[in-house]
Amino acid sequence: MSLTPFFNPNGVAVIGASATPGKLGHGVIANLIRSGYQGPIYPINPKADVILGLKVYPNIRQVPDPVDLAVIIIPAPLMPDALRACGQRGIRAAAILSGGFAEVGEEGAALQQAILDIARAFDMRLVGPNGVGVLNPHSGLNTTFIEQIPDPGDIAFLSQSGALGGALIDWAKGQRIGLSYFASLGNAADLTETDFIQALNVDPHTHVITTYIESIHDGPRFMATAREVAPHTPIIALKVGGTEAGARAVASHTASLGGLDEAYSAAFKQSGVVRARSVQELFDTAIALAYQQPPRGPRVAILTNAGGPAAVAADALARNGLQTPEPDEAIRQALRDALGDYPQLFNPIDMLGAASSPEYEAAARILLASDAYDAVLAILVPNTANDPVGVADALARAAGDGSKPIYACFMGDVSIREGRQRLHQHRIPVYDFPENGARAIANALRWRWVRESPPAAPPQPDTSPFQPLRPEIQRLAREGRDYLAEAELYPLLEEAGFPLAPWVAAYTKRTAEAFASNYPGPFAVKILSPDILHKSDIGGVVLNVPAAEVGKAYWDIQAQVRRRAPKAGLQGVIVQQMAGPGVEVIIGMRRDPTFGPMILFGGGGVYVVALRDVAFRIAPFSDEEARQMLGETVAGRMLLYGARGRRPGDVEALVQLIHQVAALALAVPELAEFELNPVIVHGRGQGVTVVDARAVMGGGG
Amino acid sequence: MSLTPFFNPNGVAVIGASATPGKLGHGVIANLIRSGYQGPIYPINPKADVILGLKVYPNIRQVPDPVDLAVIIIPAPLMPDALRACGQRGIRAAAILSGGFAEVGEEGAALQQAILDIARAFDMRLVGPNGVGVLNPHSGLNTTFIEQIPDPGDIAFLSQSGALGGALIDWAKGQRIGLSYFASLGNAADLTETDFIQALNVDPHTHVITTYIESIHDGPRFMATAREVAPHTPIIALKVGGTEAGARAVASHTASLGGLDEAYSAAFKQSGVVRARSVQELFDTAIALAYQQPPRGPRVAILTNAGGPAAVAADALARNGLQTPEPDEAIRQALRDALGDYPQLFNPIDMLGAASSPEYEAAARILLASDAYDAVLAILVPNTANDPVGVADALARAAGDGSKPIYACFMGDVSIREGRQRLHQHRIPVYDFPENGARAIANALRWRWVRESPPAAPPQPDTSPFQPLRPEIQRLAREGRDYLAEAELYPLLEEAGFPLAPWVAAYTKRTAEAFASNYPGPFAVKILSPDILHKSDIGGVVLNVPAAEVGKAYWDIQAQVRRRAPKAGLQGVIVQQMAGPGVEVIIGMRRDPTFGPMILFGGGGVYVVALRDVAFRIAPFSDEEARQMLGETVAGRMLLYGARGRRPGDVEALVQLIHQVAALALAVPELAEFELNPVIVHGRGQGVTVVDARAVMGGGG
Repeated sequence: MSLTPFFNPNGVAVIGASATPGKLGHGVIANLIRSGYQGPIYPINPKADVILGLKVYPNIRQVPDPVDLAVIIIPAPLMPDALRACGQRGIRAAAILSGGFAEVGEEGAALQQAILDIARAFDMRLVGPNGVGVLNPHSGLNTTFIEQIPDPGDIAFLSQSGALGGALIDWAKGQRIGLSYFASLGNAADLTETDFIQALNVDPHTHVITTYIESIHDGPRFMATAREVAPHTPIIALKVGGTEAGARAVASHTASLGGLDEAYSAAFKQSGVVRARSVQELFDTAIALAYQQPPRGPRVAILTNAGGPAAVAADALARNGLQTPEPDEAIRQALRDALGDYPQLFNPIDMLGAASSPEYEAAARILLASDAYDAVLAILVPNTANDPVGVADALARAAGDGSKPIYACFMGDVSIREGRQRLHQHRIPVYDFPENGARAIANALRWRWVRESPPAAPPQPDTSPFQPLRPEIQRLAREGRDYLAEAELYPLLEEAGFPLAPWVAAYTKRTAEAFASNYPGPFAVKILSPDILHKSDIGGVVLNVPAAEVGKAYWDIQAQVRRRAPKAGLQGVIVQQMAGPGVEVIIGMRRDPTFGPMILFGGGGVYVVALRDVAFRIAPFSDEEARQMLGETVAGRMLLYGARGRRPGDVEALVQLIHQVAALALAVPELAEFELNPVIVHGRGQGVTVVDARAVMGGGG
Repeated sequence: MSLTPFFNPNGVAVIGASATPGKLGHGVIANLIRSGYQGPIYPINPKADVILGLKVYPNIRQVPDPVDLAVIIIPAPLMPDALRACGQRGIRAAAILSGGFAEVGEEGAALQQAILDIARAFDMRLVGPNGVGVLNPHSGLNTTFIEQIPDPGDIAFLSQSGALGGALIDWAKGQRIGLSYFASLGNAADLTETDFIQALNVDPHTHVITTYIESIHDGPRFMATAREVAPHTPIIALKVGGTEAGARAVASHTASLGGLDEAYSAAFKQSGVVRARSVQELFDTAIALAYQQPPRGPRVAILTNAGGPAAVAADALARNGLQTPEPDEAIRQALRDALGDYPQLFNPIDMLGAASSPEYEAAARILLASDAYDAVLAILVPNTANDPVGVADALARAAGDGSKPIYACFMGDVSIREGRQRLHQHRIPVYDFPENGARAIANALRWRWVRESPPAAPPQPDTSPFQPLRPEIQRLAREGRDYLAEAELYPLLEEAGFPLAPWVAAYTKRTAEAFASNYPGPFAVKILSPDILHKSDIGGVVLNVPAAEVGKAYWDIQAQVRRRAPKAGLQGVIVQQMAGPGVEVIIGMRRDPTFGPMILFGGGGVYVVALRDVAFRIAPFSDEEARQMLGETVAGRMLLYGARGRRPGDVEALVQLIHQVAALALAVPELAEFELNPVIVHGRGQGVTVVDARAVMGGGG
């Protein structure tokens, strides 16, 4: 897509322009005029002659050249005709502000598809419907009915909620945060956040992309695009709908499905997108990355005129994974030379209440020049003795060529308003509270890592060992099976090369005993029933059975399960050699509606599962990503590095098994969920053993 | 203490008043005049005649009546004489702004003790030194050099940082948040946060107490006072310094899991103090509790004119443990009658962009009147069609008698500034972002629970069974022992009634075998060495040893440890009967320097300990608190309620053991850390078994 017809159109037609103040079709014309858009504006309305001094056209056909963009605010049922007329007139870009489409139900969705088909036929691109349009503070283009136009700047903002966009623009205006463009995506029938992200990457006005996301339309395409863009242009995303209640609100708002929050987190992480956890964090991070270079590392020097706020800052920095190392003697001496003999030149470097602008400048210069720090956070508390505007100027002088970032936290409100605005002018990121600054610095560092080590496109795994499984699983799905238990899965998994412990499905006591006599024990004996998914819940598993007792266990288990699940069909038992010692883990897969197979790795056992020691990745992914996933869990770190009294585990074999699960999920889309639980990870070189498996059918097959 | 001489003095003497603008002694006089203090002001300075039009006195003796308060800003070495003169003059309250006391080292600390002694001799109370004084916006008393005096209100603010106090007052001024008093506690040589909290509880101007804490001076007294005050007057505390500076060798898991920050959290929880996690949350919570009744429960109705921000709000409410249930058909019908047939009357109740003030009023009335909700959160996004001030007034009308709380989130900045101020005037808490509102509502609910179920003074445990241990532990401490391992602790613990598995310290193979022949196996065999604290790290533990193999294990273990710890003195092994099946937990104690013994409960095992499934309480505490501690962990919930395939554990016995640890800690102050790890909790009625124990010496003995 080209951004030009949307953000720099030569001529804008407003279909549904109104002469009545208070109507949206009037507000848009008023905003276009008020914001200073320099191109021709063509109000379209068959019943009016002049609106706000502009000549009105009865229809789009009669509008003269040039006209690049149609802004449309008419009832939904009239939309197909209007769009068709635009197409015939040669217009290739339309912003549809009207609602009444997919967000209101099936009929609306059909209408949305109809207008999309018309647009495609004319090679026309659409923003919306059900958004508030687009805004370019640089050219004064404002097709929205948002009252305030933000200052021009270099942060693009894409919002799936028009209202939230409006609120944030109002807020940005007050904070003097400049935007390059704003687009309200609405239902995103045609152009999505991904299209804009791709186009904005090569836009000279945009240095940071921020986006408010309720749901992503094409997960894999989003990830591929973000992977390409994020190392060049930071992408910061606020995604809501993370909890059940929030998900419901999203579903009722955009008629779109909310994916699992973990899937979004994993997808963002794998594609280099920085996730903001609040509205404020979104823009706090945006200015950090727009105004300054990201820090090279985590070491922050705190410069302050007050101990209390500096303590808050040190705390918040540590909570966000940043460090505040103390200055060495050389820095300390330089500070002493510049500032005099202050009692405490640790970190925070406290210059006391009456610290002057020259003192801020001198100290900031020393700290920025030092190899010991990657960034400076300068805190100012206003009092009768200091000059916030002067300190803002001093910090800007100290920042010099900007090769190392400096951030400011000017605390308070009335006494520092002017100083804050001056900092924005100097492009020094400024925060209300130390906590906000700490989060923003941590996010800026996260992006630095994305720039340094851009996420690579994942290798496409070899799914061929798993393709032969598909017909059998399709057959079971056709039989109406909702899930598959281990007796059905084991033969398939064995065929595909999964590392199973030796096992047998024993439909008779004799088979069970014969198997046991051929292997060193002990054995796990487990109920064999197509009706029971969670065997251990009803006493259907006995562990550590010696070979001599397998025959007895054959009957005991069936009797026990019969008592507790009288209606289940029992077929016998599975006898399986117990795995050798190792660490119990889980490997699972859930097919996410947005991003596809999401792989889970975590610590195993009922209790540990409740503690959520888990990490996620969207498949496929590299070995490196799989190792990172281990590193995000306590269980994985124990396996990677060993732990008290335990040696490292066979991480190579574990990573391979994780990839096998991913490849299986990619090869067999009929599987909605799949779980190896537990898997025993043995010592280095000793491999891994799959001890139980289950699958839930119902993926898109 | 009485608040009157500090906040409503009849006459203020300023010792160290200066005629030179820019000096603090000048600023204080200027602020007293400018803020409108009505009582007499007496500048004291032997070298001046008139300061800012006021008659100057050469010394305090010559100041006429009335004079209740001395504000002192002179060099620290002159302070003793000045204070003595104040005492002789009959002044009973002094605010000492000067620094140069305990904060600068030992000499300063001695000077601080000296002035405290003088104050005590004259029955005089001190605020400071090293603070910025006190401020009463109601009377215009301002002894600080903070530029802005906040609006009068009902929130008291106590700050251990003068600078942070100044910044927050500046911020409160901008937000139109009113304060009842501000006190800068400085070094708190005499009056501490606890004294003020106690006095403010009976102050008619103060409805909420906020406090910024760096460290509490007397932990037990603070807890007792807060317990008494918090159910009547909410106490909201911001405590920083959560990350412990200075890595020290960690001898026990308890010390690594529970640091100073956990002690503060536990103390606050046990005494009804609401902990704020950021500067903003402190005041966001304060206005929620000052302006409105707290919600009765967690059910919040979201009323909005925009879906996106409402989705953010629903998300944030859920994250904070609040609920957003959907309206039932009766409420929905009432909303339909009032608002027309909107497409989506779920929760959020979205009235769409152009929602009018009467619509906000009508919907808020219906939701506030409904038994289905405990609170209403009204969100407004500004646009050209709505009227923020009108909506503020509408919400105030709907709030009625205030029996149920209503909160507002007006998003943006420039377009809603006036609306926000109007909400403050109406005493409707208003927030910048939905996330802030959600946190404040959750905190208000937390305080509601404090009011409904005031924290009781804990029962004093019977320490008599543990008193006999003290002489032996004192003896070991005198011998220079840093820690005690199980062989030393077991006899003491057995004597005190701790439930140990049968054991023997075997210095010979024969003793080991003889013991094993007397008990049903299997056994744990563990290295016996005063030099080894973490036995399993070096192969010093073998589990599940049958009786017949105990003799072999005796030599094997010693050989194994000898290889890995060649310098350790080995004395033999401990043989202990293996505990029956159960859940592995850890019970620990760390003596906190502020609050005394802090008890830890958590899930056991190396891996689980790394997952930090732990809860803390300051000892002593009730059975009820001990059960709550279990309920805060996954391990504890499994024991309380059972889990998949597991029955509940013997919680009675576990609670008793927790109390035993607490009582031991109270009886033997020489123990700095103490840990039972693991403890096996058996099924209901089956008791608990202590399987290992260690102690670290060094408490205050």
